[in-house]
Amino acid sequence: MIEYQNILDSINQSVIKEQNKGTIASYIPELTNVDINDFGIHLQLVSGEQFSVGNSHQPFSIQSISKVLSLALAMSQVGTAIWERLDVEPSGNPFNHLSLLELEEGIPRNPFINSGAIVIADILVSNLKNPKADFLNYVRDITGDNSIDYNYKVAQSEKETGFNNYAAANLLKSFNNLHNDVEDVLDFYFHQCALEMTCQQLSKAFFLFANKGNCLANKARLTKSQAKRINAIMLTCGFYDEAGEFAFEVGLPGKSGVGGGIVALLPNQFVISVWSPGLNERGNSKLGMQALEQFTTLANQSIF
Amino acid sequence: MIEYQNILDSINQSVIKEQNKGTIASYIPELTNVDINDFGIHLQLVSGEQFSVGNSHQPFSIQSISKVLSLALAMSQVGTAIWERLDVEPSGNPFNHLSLLELEEGIPRNPFINSGAIVIADILVSNLKNPKADFLNYVRDITGDNSIDYNYKVAQSEKETGFNNYAAANLLKSFNNLHNDVEDVLDFYFHQCALEMTCQQLSKAFFLFANKGNCLANKARLTKSQAKRINAIMLTCGFYDEAGEFAFEVGLPGKSGVGGGIVALLPNQFVISVWSPGLNERGNSKLGMQALEQFTTLANQSIF
Amino acid sequence: MIEYQNILDSINQSVIKEQNKGTIASYIPELTNVDINDFGIHLQLVSGEQFSVGNSHQPFSIQSISKVLSLALAMSQVGTAIWERLDVEPSGNPFNHLSLLELEEGIPRNPFINSGAIVIADILVSNLKNPKADFLNYVRDITGDNSIDYNYKVAQSEKETGFNNYAAANLLKSFNNLHNDVEDVLDFYFHQCALEMTCQQLSKAFFLFANKGNCLANKARLTKSQAKRINAIMLTCGFYDEAGEFAFEVGLPGKSGVGGGIVALLPNQFVISVWSPGLNERGNSKLGMQALEQFTTLANQSIF
Amino acid sequence: MIEYQNILDSINQSVIKEQNKGTIASYIPELTNVDINDFGIHLQLVSGEQFSVGNSHQPFSIQSISKVLSLALAMSQVGTAIWERLDVEPSGNPFNHLSLLELEEGIPRNPFINSGAIVIADILVSNLKNPKADFLNYVRDITGDNSIDYNYKVAQSEKETGFNNYAAANLLKSFNNLHNDVEDVLDFYFHQCALEMTCQQLSKAFFLFANKGNCLANKARLTKSQAKRINAIMLTCGFYDEAGEFAFEVGLPGKSGVGGGIVALLPNQFVISVWSPGLNERGNSKLGMQALEQFTTLANQSIF
Repeated sequence: MIEYQNILDSINQSVIKEQNKGTIASYIPELTNVDINDFGIHLQLVSGEQFSVGNSHQPFSIQSISKVLSLALAMSQVGTAIWERLDVEPSGNPFNHLSLLELEEGIPRNPFINSGAIVIADILVSNLKNPKADFLNYVRDITGDNSIDYNYKVAQSEKETGFNNYAAANLLKSFNNLHNDVEDVLDFYFHQCALEMTCQQLSKAFFLFANKGNCLANKARLTKSQAKRINAIMLTCGFYDEAGEFAFEVGLPGKSGVGGGIVALLPNQFVISVWSPGLNERGNSKLGMQALEQFTTLANQSIF
Repeated sequence: MIEYQNILDSINQSVIKEQNKGTIASYIPELTNVDINDFGIHLQLVSGEQFSVGNSHQPFSIQSISKVLSLALAMSQVGTAIWERLDVEPSGNPFNHLSLLELEEGIPRNPFINSGAIVIADILVSNLKNPKADFLNYVRDITGDNSIDYNYKVAQSEKETGFNNYAAANLLKSFNNLHNDVEDVLDFYFHQCALEMTCQQLSKAFFLFANKGNCLANKARLTKSQAKRINAIMLTCGFYDEAGEFAFEVGLPGKSGVGGGIVALLPNQFVISVWSPGLNERGNSKLGMQALEQFTTLANQSIF
Repeated sequence: MIEYQNILDSINQSVIKEQNKGTIASYIPELTNVDINDFGIHLQLVSGEQFSVGNSHQPFSIQSISKVLSLALAMSQVGTAIWERLDVEPSGNPFNHLSLLELEEGIPRNPFINSGAIVIADILVSNLKNPKADFLNYVRDITGDNSIDYNYKVAQSEKETGFNNYAAANLLKSFNNLHNDVEDVLDFYFHQCALEMTCQQLSKAFFLFANKGNCLANKARLTKSQAKRINAIMLTCGFYDEAGEFAFEVGLPGKSGVGGGIVALLPNQFVISVWSPGLNERGNSKLGMQALEQFTTLANQSIF
Repeated sequence: MIEYQNILDSINQSVIKEQNKGTIASYIPELTNVDINDFGIHLQLVSGEQFSVGNSHQPFSIQSISKVLSLALAMSQVGTAIWERLDVEPSGNPFNHLSLLELEEGIPRNPFINSGAIVIADILVSNLKNPKADFLNYVRDITGDNSIDYNYKVAQSEKETGFNNYAAANLLKSFNNLHNDVEDVLDFYFHQCALEMTCQQLSKAFFLFANKGNCLANKARLTKSQAKRINAIMLTCGFYDEAGEFAFEVGLPGKSGVGGGIVALLPNQFVISVWSPGLNERGNSKLGMQALEQFTTLANQSIF
């Protein structure tokens, strides 16, 4: 019997003492309104038990973590046809590099680099009646929590400064791999990234990936095979150019966001969400990465 | 005494027989409204004499050739300060590659790749009162011909399909190397590229580069040093990834456009303009390149 | 209770019917002396049971699969210090690309691209008394099989045609990331790649990765943490630029070689080795990949 | 009448005062045996007059400048067939980058990047009876000076440390673009680069490029067209990734070497050679570049 609460407490103790907490993302002003000392973990076992420590009930901007949720919805809507428009290989490059996209003629490397997530957004804009409302409902549904919402200020702020995403969307369009208007797709994409969730809500949202496609309310939202495949993409592509490092050090499928959140999971066992807003030089939560390394060491659990 | 008229006639004879005339640019519908058999040359000597053959008085879309004229105006307005925002090295890559721009953190390789020309457009938008009108007046002034105008349909067509240029402008903006709004800069840029000129008008417009900075009406529009430097950039960067080939085969500073125009010059001697709308696989006029090779061989003149 | 023998038989039936068996590697003459119809599988459970089908006892050239074994020996000899000389990130590029190595100033992306494996070979040459003999003994030891040997003709053949590997080794040397003579390192490397093993031997050799670092004879040859980390690298980097695809379709850590072998494993459960010499266009065994996809589907087992 | 001697004296005065003289190349020990204060210029007019200042009679290692001479000999031996094995486009990259070579499948960008010069060396090894002796005789012949020789210590030193050139030669071999043994080609190449010449000898050797292919003794050693084309390649590719800058600032075809030499020429007018061993950060002689900028400004002569 693993003493999960003791493990979380011990991680919290160790992390509080850390002097260098990383750097808060500053590329949009709205993201800087957080306290560098904020830190929370929530652990949701597939068996139903929950454990938490710190600010696990404080909402933060989930940013790129949302790409896993939009991918899940796109796969459930369109099935394998999405793979005609993007690939599943790691990029080995920072998250905003357009070079590979150009070299590979408009086919994004995977759904978690920005250009890939924009293609997924394009697919959802084509297939949903009210894209923003429908996606929000999907997230609320799988989480079982209607209080989840977009932060509209953050979405607006990203729109005003998201020139790199505009560049990516236009480049995709020049290769005929964006079917809707650039503005419509990015409006959806910026809202998707501006979702605010707590650690607890994140753990619940990702429950279906640890539970063979069935969400917390035990309803099938993905096939078992789809859940497995999304886990594989998280493992190989979930951490920008630190994906190999995370697999090496932590050994769990997961996804990070520049808001400082990380969610990771062990199939059939648990989902764990960590939040600490300071980032390392590769754009992943510095203390979040440390916390997850400690967790898998102490709990002695990983897919490997 | 060189028999220029005989040389032009002989080139015309040889070119008419050519079976493979290349492919007309199709990336904007408006550019396809030309006859693949159109062909014209105009030669303007610095001494004043003129020679021509074929459709030398028929206007065509000068496209990228306009980048030399916008560079000249920017240099005369802002001087050497423009080189803080872009470089003068050949790119060794096709004209639309954003990869280098990303690798070199938003500093375009030279003013003739699209991203460099967009930075020049940004400089002009910042420095001209009525950018489109003022630029048109500048071109009319140096050419001494008020009939020159934009083709507004072509400009509109480029706007609707110019996703790669939107990508470049937004990427520049993400690196803080675009000071005005993307829409304002590209509106100017698309009009600039949509200038329509005849071979004769092109030769007259480029007269100042062959004549130490003094235009046809013998007024100084550039310093001698500025004219020399623009010639150097034309030689090293004027033909996308065929710049070395053109220097090797022809040996003159020059600039091509996807409308099928090419203008080249020998300092203190002449300007020559050729138009044939069929392009080779590198985006330069196929017969235009051939015609200029024959011209420098027959006239036995080059900078080398 | 999973009916493993039925599954292997069923895969064998299905694979025999496949018309397109891929292309045998031809870059060294010695590798072409195999029959395109050769096909074998061997499954070794951690619990001890074994299952096999086809030519599972026929030796073949394991080629790049040997990189996992040399990495294991280097880790057990030198520990974490090896990571000062190479990284653990996926390359997202074909196995022989030197570009990334140059861009990243002589630090190979991971130990499974050629340049990374050459650095590992250099480490072993520095640390072993008789590198070739000692490495062979290590492989015999963990496999419990003294009949395993190098194919010296293959090694010689690689030496005579391995210009790309000579290029990589010299480039590493120019960045001071090769400490021994190029010839000495490559002599070791070419022998390592020229190991011949059967499917059965491969399963036994890789047993320690599935068994927390303990080999078949239940002796500790790696720490549990080292075994876990090598599994992580296999998953993210084991299949050249098809690593993401393999994780996505199969969902097991594994490694392929151009001899047509693939070995994969599920920690604490099993090791499975497949051999079919025809390669797909990305250099991995075509039928081997299919066989493993079918196996994980039918056995319903993967790390995800 | 231009006062050339006054101009050279004035440049010498100005250059002596310069505090920052750049950095002497240290990649091979033998190259460091020079005095940072050494400085010389020699100017050879096509009309026959000569002017000089400083250490214009002191031999130095011409290094990459030799690539122009080997290209000239290869063109005179093999003609246009050499262009089946390499291109004439600027590389836009530092001189030792293998990435482009790999991307472009073994076809070097131009004859002045290392890989291109190695292909030229391969051609000479195939076509000359005694490559090293024959090449030396060629250089002595066009210069009219039998005292020119290789520095065998420098050649040996390059051989022992030239790992990047070994990498390039092996990469070329892997693409079947090297016909002789790597060792034979590089032995020739390292000697070629180890030629020692004075500024005066360099001016005389390059006389044929300024004089329509006829050397100082007025014998035809290249056709007029070949001389013109080599000049074009010098202009577009002669200065690594500073070629555009040199064309822009100086406006003459030329070639630099890491020994600190630069030779430049104005067709039909003059050849000028400068030597100052301190390099700028792009590998070209720092004071040599300055001297040539001053020369073309003061003499008011350039091809543009």
